[in-house]
Amino acid sequence: MTAEIISIGDELLIGQVVNTNASWMAAELNKSGIRVGHISMISDDKKAINDALNEAGERANVILITGGLGPTKDDITKQVLADYFGAKLIFHDPSFEQVMKLFKARNYEVTPINRKQAEIPDNCIPLLNKHGTAPGMWFEKEGKVYVSMPGVPFEMKTLMTGQIIPRLQEKFNLGFIYHKTIMTHGLGESKLAEQIQDVEEGLPHHIKLAYLPQPGIVRLRLSASGNDKDFLENEIKKYCRQIRDIIPELVFGFDDVSMEEVVGKLLMEKGKTLSTAESCTGGYIAHLITSIPGSSNYFTGSVISYSNDIKIKELGVKPVDLDKYGAVSKQVVEQMAAGVREKLGTDYSLATSGIAGPDGGTDEKPVGTVWIALASEKGVKSKLLHLGEHRGRNIRRSALAALDLLRLELITASSVDT
Amino acid sequence: MTAEIISIGDELLIGQVVNTNASWMAAELNKSGIRVGHISMISDDKKAINDALNEAGERANVILITGGLGPTKDDITKQVLADYFGAKLIFHDPSFEQVMKLFKARNYEVTPINRKQAEIPDNCIPLLNKHGTAPGMWFEKEGKVYVSMPGVPFEMKTLMTGQIIPRLQEKFNLGFIYHKTIMTHGLGESKLAEQIQDVEEGLPHHIKLAYLPQPGIVRLRLSASGNDKDFLENEIKKYCRQIRDIIPELVFGFDDVSMEEVVGKLLMEKGKTLSTAESCTGGYIAHLITSIPGSSNYFTGSVISYSNDIKIKELGVKPVDLDKYGAVSKQVVEQMAAGVREKLGTDYSLATSGIAGPDGGTDEKPVGTVWIALASEKGVKSKLLHLGEHRGRNIRRSALAALDLLRLELITASSVDT
Repeated sequence: MTAEIISIGDELLIGQVVNTNASWMAAELNKSGIRVGHISMISDDKKAINDALNEAGERANVILITGGLGPTKDDITKQVLADYFGAKLIFHDPSFEQVMKLFKARNYEVTPINRKQAEIPDNCIPLLNKHGTAPGMWFEKEGKVYVSMPGVPFEMKTLMTGQIIPRLQEKFNLGFIYHKTIMTHGLGESKLAEQIQDVEEGLPHHIKLAYLPQPGIVRLRLSASGNDKDFLENEIKKYCRQIRDIIPELVFGFDDVSMEEVVGKLLMEKGKTLSTAESCTGGYIAHLITSIPGSSNYFTGSVISYSNDIKIKELGVKPVDLDKYGAVSKQVVEQMAAGVREKLGTDYSLATSGIAGPDGGTDEKPVGTVWIALASEKGVKSKLLHLGEHRGRNIRRSALAALDLLRLELITASSVDT
Repeated sequence: MTAEIISIGDELLIGQVVNTNASWMAAELNKSGIRVGHISMISDDKKAINDALNEAGERANVILITGGLGPTKDDITKQVLADYFGAKLIFHDPSFEQVMKLFKARNYEVTPINRKQAEIPDNCIPLLNKHGTAPGMWFEKEGKVYVSMPGVPFEMKTLMTGQIIPRLQEKFNLGFIYHKTIMTHGLGESKLAEQIQDVEEGLPHHIKLAYLPQPGIVRLRLSASGNDKDFLENEIKKYCRQIRDIIPELVFGFDDVSMEEVVGKLLMEKGKTLSTAESCTGGYIAHLITSIPGSSNYFTGSVISYSNDIKIKELGVKPVDLDKYGAVSKQVVEQMAAGVREKLGTDYSLATSGIAGPDGGTDEKPVGTVWIALASEKGVKSKLLHLGEHRGRNIRRSALAALDLLRLELITASSVDT
């Protein structure tokens, strides 16, 4: 069972856009037991599309095509597909209704171009696109499946997980692959590998362990393939428990849950509230927290104190300590956490103060020096981080470390279950 | 003059690694006037490599291959290339000396595997790799050039810029391609297309216009190809001006600049300061602003007022207006903007209050209803947005719209030049 991905778009061939769509699709297909044999990136051009379809059709059972479905003139994929599969374009009412609904919600006017987007080849199965104007299209030819999707990542992802992968699983009666991902924070890939070496070496042949590192997080993915679903599931759970028992504090969740979701859920369960006082993270912790629906139940707000003035005036940081220890210090970050907790009247407060870079470092406090603190009714605790030189990654890693500090506080005397 | 890129490696096909190498190479080749017609990602497999070489050789003049040159068993590219070009592997002293030098510097031991890495096909031109153990290899066959490079990004980049691109330019006596990207905010792709239809239809054959949409932003990329560099550059500039003159308020910059960079630069130039009061954006505006190095020069801080209590206590929003009009209202968002401006003492303040979703919508104020406001010494102005149903995109689009409100205020009585 082999698939190929054809990504259409000149933006890929001039290097303006990195093809993250194809990587995401490849990962999802692999998780579903579909091997990806080839990925092609080609131009918005009739001959290029035809040739790519011919070549892919000779090699694979499933050909997934993204891009080239927008309303503008450089997007010609739909007509080329209609010709390739010997179809003519017909107006598809449900797709147009979908566009109308979407545009009405946004108060946009529907133009003749949008009407054209609701035309589809008459021999395809249309896949309604809830989030955009171009429907997906499912073709079958000589036992092979060809699916065309828009290139907008969010639209493509929704179509893939909601409609395309389930249809492929049904049509090809795929074997079973069971995955479980262990989310860890606090150790890099190689140190983590050392810690869990014994479990890894004891894994049976049909279970694989992959290390998937991101800034501040390493995901450990266990995958088991076979035909007995319950057996695989139990086996994977057993190895998950073995790994977690070796590194209990590092495991913050499973299956791609985010740190902000975990912390939000814990706050919700315990009926506790949170505020933040952010300097070097500049609102990023608040942004992570509020990216979770329903976060208004436990998050009240923040004081982003980028300037020292605001640290003093709004958070009650002592000017003498700012002078003596500097803004990036244990003293200041602890006062920030305590100050915002009192001001906004929450159970918990997180604070950050550090040098995100690329400038502002000194010999004593180089770029990547970050203090984080947590205030609660029990008092204030803080932690010093030594991060790298990349501003964006320093901000993200500081925010994750601060949230993890709160998570560890919240789970004390609690148990986490798989 | 067309090139193709073949990226070899199973890690690409399981979605574990995003192919940033190919994007980087494509961008560099385009800048040098070499069009990239096709990019393939294939497996470490003899048949896959041979087929990819055959297909690429039929379409392109230059075939650039990365990956598959490491010392481990799944890396078979070198032997496959030797067979493909009818060569036998010979030991290459200068490449081995290079490996020895590198290993000595790193205090590594040279193993028999490393010796094997210094073997090259006897009919290629070896390209010395200063940063790694596998040399690049330049083959010529029937007037076409095939170059194999290691997949390690840093090694590949050094070989590309230092040796491969200069050799290609010399060998093929290359023409020129000029690109410029216009960054727009405020209209969707299809409406934008209607507005600039006349310019688009009047473009000469050698100039192409592409629409590249993202949430809240549409990038318009003009590309011209030919031999006269100055002529193309002037032509592209002319069409850029024509487009900008039709939609002057929608154009916020050029060549992939971000909205937060543009706003930051304007604040810096004018010596003005900014604060934010964020409800539905939950700190995301502050995060965007502070993602720019040096933003502490113009950004002082924010009050993230997720709860109504904080809107009242910290921002001076009138309880009676919260009751009468609700938190998502012109009255409240304007009081938030004015309140934070006064509290934090900045020249400008942005505020947001809306229903990001997925829950919390009503018939009167559905999900996606967002008010944004800007306070300055001239008073407060506000704007109502009707966005979609996706929380993350609503937050992003609200933040971009708020920053754009400030941008338009800052450029009033200023001029923007291409």
